Amino acid sequence: MKISVNVIGHIESPLRSRDEAPRQGAEGAPPAILVFDESVEDGLSDIQVGDRLLVLTWLDRADRSVLKVHPRDNPRAPLCGVFSTRSQDRPNPIGVHRVTVLSIMEPLRFQVSDLEAFDGTPILDVKVALEGIVE
Amino acid sequence: MKISVNVIGHIESPLRSRDEAPRQGAEGAPPAILVFDESVEDGLSDIQVGDRLLVLTWLDRADRSVLKVHPRDNPRAPLCGVFSTRSQDRPNPIGVHRVTVLSIMEPLRFQVSDLEAFDGTPILDVKVALEGIVE
Repeated sequence: MKISVNVIGHIESPLRSRDEAPRQGAEGAPPAILVFDESVEDGLSDIQVGDRLLVLTWLDRADRSVLKVHPRDNPRAPLCGVFSTRSQDRPNPIGVHRVTVLSIMEPLRFQVSDLEAFDGTPILDVKVALEGIVE
Repeated sequence: MKISVNVIGHIESPLRSRDEAPRQGAEGAPPAILVFDESVEDGLSDIQVGDRLLVLTWLDRADRSVLKVHPRDNPRAPLCGVFSTRSQDRPNPIGVHRVTVLSIMEPLRFQVSDLEAFDGTPILDVKVALEGIVE
């Protein structure tokens, strides 16, 4: 069974390749910009500077055939089932990124911290992050 | 732009309608069962009892036309842009659920705690949950 997901925006980032990207956003990712389509503008109206958001992306440069990986790209680590890792290579490469809003540049453009996705990565969804308990 | 996502499994749960479902898993959801397709079995091999996982689902009973909601279904709360909430009604209703593995029933069936999705909800992805910092 297949599901069709509409892309609602994309990431602008200086990160362009795997060599440049940290493995998790909190490990040194640069600020990035969330750029949204006009069609979803009404849903963005309550985002404020300082908000903690969960951004869901489609990691479009991932290898979707992968079911076993070496954790953290370490070839000496034993192969591990991909669902016990955060590898971007997986059957449905949906990225989950916890970010903080740094500035609202225009109604459809938000600068955020700590986003490790590549430039051009499609955005699928944004939610408020729940502190302490969930995600 | 549309993206095609392959469903990799589904949820078995006693929850069958919105009236029965809590708003977040930690607010009293019952245990549920993750049932996976054989095609992804190799990716499940390292999941252990006690693991904390992030389960991504497709909330197939959501209203995808919604951009403004009353937070927590409270009609007295002011309307809010949907991307500042955790409403299931949103353009791409991807559920993010943090769960704990309670038992491995069969190689493709895992009982987990605190999952607030309805019975039959499609599973899109599973990742290890990162304690403290991310998601």
